Amino acid sequence: MSITEALHWRYATKRMNGQKVPQEKVDRILEAARLAPSSYGLQPYAVLVIEDEALREMISPAAFHQPQITESSHLLVFAAWDSVHATHVDDFIRLTAEERGMHLADLEDYSNAIKGAVNGFSSPEERFHWAAKQAYLSLGAALAAAAVEQVDASPMEGFDPASLDALLGLEEHGLRSVVLMALGYRDIENDRLAGLKKVRWPREKLFIHLEQEALHRG
Amino acid sequence: MSITEALHWRYATKRMNGQKVPQEKVDRILEAARLAPSSYGLQPYAVLVIEDEALREMISPAAFHQPQITESSHLLVFAAWDSVHATHVDDFIRLTAEERGMHLADLEDYSNAIKGAVNGFSSPEERFHWAAKQAYLSLGAALAAAAVEQVDASPMEGFDPASLDALLGLEEHGLRSVVLMALGYRDIENDRLAGLKKVRWPREKLFIHLEQEALHRG
Repeated sequence: MSITEALHWRYATKRMNGQKVPQEKVDRILEAARLAPSSYGLQPYAVLVIEDEALREMISPAAFHQPQITESSHLLVFAAWDSVHATHVDDFIRLTAEERGMHLADLEDYSNAIKGAVNGFSSPEERFHWAAKQAYLSLGAALAAAAVEQVDASPMEGFDPASLDALLGLEEHGLRSVVLMALGYRDIENDRLAGLKKVRWPREKLFIHLEQEALHRG
Repeated sequence: MSITEALHWRYATKRMNGQKVPQEKVDRILEAARLAPSSYGLQPYAVLVIEDEALREMISPAAFHQPQITESSHLLVFAAWDSVHATHVDDFIRLTAEERGMHLADLEDYSNAIKGAVNGFSSPEERFHWAAKQAYLSLGAALAAAAVEQVDASPMEGFDPASLDALLGLEEHGLRSVVLMALGYRDIENDRLAGLKKVRWPREKLFIHLEQEALHRG
């Protein structure tokens, strides 16, 4: 199945039937999230993987009891780094040196460029938004992968990040939750969204084709 | 080619060889961007598609003369809605009613929910970040699609949004650029990043498997 067909097939599945997603499919969806690019390659986020039913029950109130929290097979919590410390960058540079067989000294300029960038935001909140955007990009790749695997997914912003972070102890990890992704299988009988036509802006609205000449004729 | 293989194959291509990407591949990449989900399905962004070489030359300074701006085949500019007006939501609700053969009255609660949400941000800038995140999710799907098409892509944050917006007249469209995606083909001889091993956090760092029991043992 092509990505186009897969993205047509998928929809934001609100009701799921509790069926478990095979581990190899979960692994491929997570791998897409992991392989997604990010600013400087830093991947300033983590993904919490929650299969445990008891824990998903506990999370449910923080997500306003939306049924896919407990009816899903796995709940993924995309959580961005609350802050970016020099040690984060040093860890990343060390990993890069190891993976590519390079000397740390050869990566010093790169290290300084990243540190300059992460310290250059106008506020800690602006930096957090930047980190969150990288997590959303990763989510986009994971959603495409889930669709190709014919696994239903519900991306969710409808939850209380502060409550969820407290429940999961994310502060200790230096993380703050930004978006959820419930994985499972659609419950066609009970999901009023199942089978509804997908609504997207038409191409002629979403895409703006620009040319130099046209731009300066106006 | 699976998404996993495709994401391994891709890398942030800094040098491209100027070869044109066939239109049908560009169309499928754009279609992935268009089909990507977004908060409420509102898709609060647009994608500028720039093939014209003269215009890409003009853009180059705003992107600090990074070579992929002019060496690419197409430059995509993901631009988020600067603001979200009631008319935006009304347009979306009208589209939804048309596509699904529903009455506008049946969508009134949904319309009010969206309007409440977009007016509920603590500042216009917070709302803009939310819109930008939806664009990043769309970029993630487009990057996966490009990789599967074996088209190289360079996601780029290294540009001056204010300069680019002024050059492209984005204010008139109610848009602000958030991230770029250059599409083309790698120039293996000149790209020092070509062939380098991909660096990603190992699974055991990026993924945190949580269980209720473990969480409350600590």
